[in-house]
Amino acid sequence: MISISSKDNQLIKYIAKLNKSAKYRRENGEFVAEGFRICRDAVLSAARISSAVFSQSAVEKYSGDAAFIAEACENVYIVPDSLFTQICDTKTPQGVVCVIKTLDIPFVFGKIKSNGKFIALDNIQDPSNLGTILRTAEALGIDGVIMSADTCDIYSPKVVRGSMGAVFRLPFIVVDSIETFLTQHPQLKSYAAVVDISSTRITDVSFAPPCVTVIGNEGNGLKEETIWACDESITIPMDGRAESLNASVAASIIIWEMVK
Amino acid sequence: MISISSKDNQLIKYIAKLNKSAKYRRENGEFVAEGFRICRDAVLSAARISSAVFSQSAVEKYSGDAAFIAEACENVYIVPDSLFTQICDTKTPQGVVCVIKTLDIPFVFGKIKSNGKFIALDNIQDPSNLGTILRTAEALGIDGVIMSADTCDIYSPKVVRGSMGAVFRLPFIVVDSIETFLTQHPQLKSYAAVVDISSTRITDVSFAPPCVTVIGNEGNGLKEETIWACDESITIPMDGRAESLNASVAASIIIWEMVK
Repeated sequence: MISISSKDNQLIKYIAKLNKSAKYRRENGEFVAEGFRICRDAVLSAARISSAVFSQSAVEKYSGDAAFIAEACENVYIVPDSLFTQICDTKTPQGVVCVIKTLDIPFVFGKIKSNGKFIALDNIQDPSNLGTILRTAEALGIDGVIMSADTCDIYSPKVVRGSMGAVFRLPFIVVDSIETFLTQHPQLKSYAAVVDISSTRITDVSFAPPCVTVIGNEGNGLKEETIWACDESITIPMDGRAESLNASVAASIIIWEMVK
Repeated sequence: MISISSKDNQLIKYIAKLNKSAKYRRENGEFVAEGFRICRDAVLSAARISSAVFSQSAVEKYSGDAAFIAEACENVYIVPDSLFTQICDTKTPQGVVCVIKTLDIPFVFGKIKSNGKFIALDNIQDPSNLGTILRTAEALGIDGVIMSADTCDIYSPKVVRGSMGAVFRLPFIVVDSIETFLTQHPQLKSYAAVVDISSTRITDVSFAPPCVTVIGNEGNGLKEETIWACDESITIPMDGRAESLNASVAASIIIWEMVK
């Protein structure tokens, strides 16, 4: 373990910047995971961890967990608790962050699972919603996630944490346009999730694989052109109160109906 | 409208304290709702609003909404924007708070809906989870909510906001013990939501009314004695990964299966 004691250290500055900027994460091909559970998940998922940084008190308090994570990392650092606050995104940090290589190696559906069930996320803006949707998708057994480029960054600290490590295990790709993606994958039966009582009720859909359900922005739903690009529009039947569901809850109910 | 300009004003201090302390809310029988949508909901639900406080810029920017809310309140105040930050709980306030009488007039199930579907929340700790669960329960048509006294306070600012006004419309009661409540209401078929693959799958339950599903603490689930007090244990089938669902998502899927 190498000790760092200056806030002007290059790694400290680098991690702080990775936490803040999606552009910087893209440019450097790395992101930050924070907390013991998520960092353990990264190790267990064989993510490529370039550095781990522990706070002094975390090494003392969680020596077993710290050793498990440190073993999987090329470079291991230890910093005073006061300095650790510079590189963490949470208010009550556990005292570990890992710098990890980004994972979005595009996957090809034909090669992954020709009879898979997928979700596509178009312009989801809230990192907490994205984290929860990824977590739910993994837990319930969705085979992969397609995200539009204007969906919030999957590598933001809040998404990584909220996903409970699903970012490490759930296959995903980022595409410029969901419409184009659908056109390129005509074998996937595509459903547009909308709030519209005249659409097919999700309870009446078989979701026979291969299929994909497209979920839109929290406030505005799906764009007209995305709805047109889908084979069918579907809705959560609820006597006209569908707009009152939280976006991640609505997505979770749809995912549940897809896979149950 | 009465102008307030001092941070030492009694009402300003009173609202700040209501925001912070559940005990203080109980002692005074009042709570705070913040934001135009929630305050409008309070008016539309005929909640008893003792005071409304607007920021100077909110009155200018949202004059129509402000007038709608002000009309329903006995006392209306206006404060400089700088002072408004003392009484709000959000980072980017819209500029309105209402002080509202608490609503938990105990309801009797026999009189409310003998064929109702209810949920009981035992020791839910996270205000965001409670807010989301209430919002989902209302949106999907649950008839009422029973909360244990050790569940987080329904009148906390985060719960009121997260519920999107469901606190004003959804019948609820707070009870000392869910077990006692179940014993006192034997006509309600009761289900304990657990993570246990040997329990009945929620997809195999008819949820014939009157019934109640009991949902437990985020980290620890239901207490053994609560599970014993229920007629049947039920679970979300997901190949042993049920613990990976977020508490409010798990509750939402159960609510969905109850009412769909």
